Amino acid sequence: MSYRAPVDQITFILNHVLNFPRLAKTELFAEATDETVNAILSEAGKLAENEIAPLNRNGDLTPARLENGKLRSSPGFEAGFRAIAEGGWIGLASDPEYGGMGLPQALNMAVAEMLSGACLSLQLNPLLTQGQIDALQHHADDEMKALYLPKLNSGEWSGTMNLTEPGAGSDVGALTTKAERNEDGTYSITGQKIFITWGDSDVTENVCHAVLARLPDGGKGTKGISLFMVPKFIPDENGNPGVANSLKVVSLEHKMGIHGSPTCVMSYEGATGWLIGKEHGGMAAMFTMMNAARLGVGVQGVGVAEAALQQAVEYATERNQFGPIIRHADVRRMLATARAEVFAARAICLATAITADVARSTGDEDCASRAAFLTPIAKAYGTDVGCRVADMNVQVHGGMGFIEETGAAQYLRDVRITPIYEGTNGIQAMDLVGRKLADGGEAANRLLDEMLDVAKAAQADLPDLANDAFQAAENLRDATQAMLERDLQDRFAGAVPYLNAFAKVLGALFHLKAAMSGDPGRIVLARIFITRVMPRYAADLAEAQAGLADLEAITDDQLAGAFGA
Amino acid sequence: MSYRAPVDQITFILNHVLNFPRLAKTELFAEATDETVNAILSEAGKLAENEIAPLNRNGDLTPARLENGKLRSSPGFEAGFRAIAEGGWIGLASDPEYGGMGLPQALNMAVAEMLSGACLSLQLNPLLTQGQIDALQHHADDEMKALYLPKLNSGEWSGTMNLTEPGAGSDVGALTTKAERNEDGTYSITGQKIFITWGDSDVTENVCHAVLARLPDGGKGTKGISLFMVPKFIPDENGNPGVANSLKVVSLEHKMGIHGSPTCVMSYEGATGWLIGKEHGGMAAMFTMMNAARLGVGVQGVGVAEAALQQAVEYATERNQFGPIIRHADVRRMLATARAEVFAARAICLATAITADVARSTGDEDCASRAAFLTPIAKAYGTDVGCRVADMNVQVHGGMGFIEETGAAQYLRDVRITPIYEGTNGIQAMDLVGRKLADGGEAANRLLDEMLDVAKAAQADLPDLANDAFQAAENLRDATQAMLERDLQDRFAGAVPYLNAFAKVLGALFHLKAAMSGDPGRIVLARIFITRVMPRYAADLAEAQAGLADLEAITDDQLAGAFGA
Repeated sequence: MSYRAPVDQITFILNHVLNFPRLAKTELFAEATDETVNAILSEAGKLAENEIAPLNRNGDLTPARLENGKLRSSPGFEAGFRAIAEGGWIGLASDPEYGGMGLPQALNMAVAEMLSGACLSLQLNPLLTQGQIDALQHHADDEMKALYLPKLNSGEWSGTMNLTEPGAGSDVGALTTKAERNEDGTYSITGQKIFITWGDSDVTENVCHAVLARLPDGGKGTKGISLFMVPKFIPDENGNPGVANSLKVVSLEHKMGIHGSPTCVMSYEGATGWLIGKEHGGMAAMFTMMNAARLGVGVQGVGVAEAALQQAVEYATERNQFGPIIRHADVRRMLATARAEVFAARAICLATAITADVARSTGDEDCASRAAFLTPIAKAYGTDVGCRVADMNVQVHGGMGFIEETGAAQYLRDVRITPIYEGTNGIQAMDLVGRKLADGGEAANRLLDEMLDVAKAAQADLPDLANDAFQAAENLRDATQAMLERDLQDRFAGAVPYLNAFAKVLGALFHLKAAMSGDPGRIVLARIFITRVMPRYAADLAEAQAGLADLEAITDDQLAGAFGA
Repeated sequence: MSYRAPVDQITFILNHVLNFPRLAKTELFAEATDETVNAILSEAGKLAENEIAPLNRNGDLTPARLENGKLRSSPGFEAGFRAIAEGGWIGLASDPEYGGMGLPQALNMAVAEMLSGACLSLQLNPLLTQGQIDALQHHADDEMKALYLPKLNSGEWSGTMNLTEPGAGSDVGALTTKAERNEDGTYSITGQKIFITWGDSDVTENVCHAVLARLPDGGKGTKGISLFMVPKFIPDENGNPGVANSLKVVSLEHKMGIHGSPTCVMSYEGATGWLIGKEHGGMAAMFTMMNAARLGVGVQGVGVAEAALQQAVEYATERNQFGPIIRHADVRRMLATARAEVFAARAICLATAITADVARSTGDEDCASRAAFLTPIAKAYGTDVGCRVADMNVQVHGGMGFIEETGAAQYLRDVRITPIYEGTNGIQAMDLVGRKLADGGEAANRLLDEMLDVAKAAQADLPDLANDAFQAAENLRDATQAMLERDLQDRFAGAVPYLNAFAKVLGALFHLKAAMSGDPGRIVLARIFITRVMPRYAADLAEAQAGLADLEAITDDQLAGAFGA
């Protein structure tokens, strides 16, 4: 089995579904010409196929480990990371002033998808480093930018995100890590953090920890939290790694998957930190970091889905039981719906990125709010599709899918973290129906209007598909209106099904756009999505509107199975 | 975390949903009185909670292994198996003439659910032994029965099922293992078998392999296959294990889950075997064995679902993020729909068993064909619910769900095999729309009529729920009629969604029956199922009727992601 980078599929979506070329007409992204885009995607594809994908099994079989407190990453990971760094891929979308290439996020996400499909465990390191780069670009002062950004963009150093503590997960504001002001303007950081991805690294010469902590005068909850840069080695006067900071990796977690990605328990023992942004303003910087990362996580789901689907098709082609099983109707049904869902998830993720790029390059605030609206959908749907397709791949393999040597189980074990980290998909859905509908539905309705326009435009050529999609979009608009009329707890009860419905209808519209190219393959794939996948939105919307009453009527004891007499 | 046997939930379904007491009125099951049933379930529950559940982690952390060709099972498994055997649980439903207790399969399946929830890896051994007991009871001659059945019923010996070969999985008829006639009436068996669950055991003194092989004059395909008893140790004149047979375990598979259950590659090298049933008639005996086992596998799904749901509820009660997360609407939604699905899956599995019991005790052929109709639904839905609920448990745990120490990941990794073995769920669905509709829909329609009657009977007390369920059952009847009018390949294209729809509507009817007890908790659980889970049948039926055309129109290259220009 070998991963094939889906360069053509990505290019088709960029050019024929999402009108990517409009970006090259802006000043900011003038360099994102057809030629550059093709070269970028083709080079990244080769890297993913030839240098990164071969490492994927190594990560699973020989997990990262601690050796006398030092991290030893999986075989080949150092060379793999070097190849990513030296290709300039980490700084692809970063500010050129600090060593980045200044290209659109959409391209960066396309590259991230391919690297994720090749080796999720390794790709997490660049992903989190990019999140930190984003946070520094937006919130750090010039001195910190000048010191850290070039090293992060080049991949000489890597970055981490330190939010979670044993008692503070989704409720970040419950954290207890302390920061104290030192006389020289630095801070002393003390506390324990968990679930720190790539919290140590032997593939970079320094590890830069962005750590959330509370100053003595920081109030309770999220408003009293500040963000600090806490490097593993304190940079010397030349900006090179100097003395070791007072921090350590206590242990690595034993996880269901992504064994090649070290998940660290970190201890900060009066470690020296530098403030990022303002005192007590840490959450804003953290959100910048998480926002970039959560689209990246959606894209991870797409990447693994693509890889798993390729493996499923290959196995189904080779495996004979009453003829090649790819000819069996039910196997074909599984593969075809998966291919249709991978298209939809990829289109939604890339659309989110392009919308953010347009917002940045034109200052269009509608685009900015649309990108914000799409982000939780992209994260949740991308990762759900990742899990569904990886699960389907196991099923298509039959008994061989359960045997670890096949690799099918690894995709499923690896991708299963993606609906959880960077905010569970439940949290994404609450963000969607809470914060993202807090504008009174403006962003949602603008998007829905455009979706209805797409369906109308397709009516002449593809009447049955267009009508079904139009009707679905209208129902989604009604459901959105109904959602706006509910109180927040009631919305939360329907948040996940609402998000799921939105993703299916939006995916259908992107399929319609693809089908309008007239290509027969695109039309049949759109038909598969619109007749087999999209119709499930109706039950989603029904559940989205079911409200809280029955969930409150059932008691905790009954949930546990105790119904009394 | 500790597993609590759901004795009350099972008893409620037996008595108030499925009219189990009717069995005690038959001669065959006269001993299955209320008192006996309560004693059986309560004893089995204690065994599962106190002696078996504590072994579950051992199996995962210390897998069964080969040591100089000898199997070493996981710590505590021998004592656990002894406890199951000495309690008489293996022969619970077997013929009393050979040491069984002669109780209904429904009770046996209730016990199997609890043992599966406690420790799936260990429970597989009794399950497969019971499958072999069934096959011998139906197909072996008296001498073989007298020799083997008492030892199998008592758990002194265990039984395995040897179907699969590297090139013969779903296509059993492709097998190449050879049988040759010896002069003394025995046979010599030569070949390799894979995926042999508990293919060796240090918890029993002999392992009895039921092996499918082809005689020299056996024709091609399944019609030329015979079934043989091939014991690890050949019984001596006193029926005790004598000389070793010419067979061995070549290796154990490295699997995603059920590490405590050794999955063996077996090699038979002229091993001595005895014919079970008739020459070239092996498939009939194999089907007896598999039929028992596949309901048992459905029940395994229910058992793991119950265990995982209990863990999810416990974690959600204890975990505080903005208050206990069990108070969060979305977490509550996940737990409540899981509780509703576990009820439905349990009811479907127990209904299948009771229907088979009624058929056996009364000779009613309609009941026999109904049990046959329900079996693939019970297997597929039970195992799908097992996977869904185990997955939900991981999600409710958030980041902790991905950490192996929690145990949530183990449930998911373990249960993931159940939609695959004993015939993938796709194969179950093909059996349903193929063989099980081959009577022109008689069995299906009789069942649908009863489902409609249940809905009608509930209309006075629960009008909205009853009307929704009635409408769903009517739509299912139409869809069944439409299915009957299609050719087989077209049916196969819609087989899985059709099965899924059937399970949801049938589950709704069982919920209605439970709600008609008037208990407020039962009513709210029925409402949760009928408003949140059941409505998804409509999209299932739409997909069931989508046919084969689009699946044939999409090319293999397109499935692989290559759409041309």
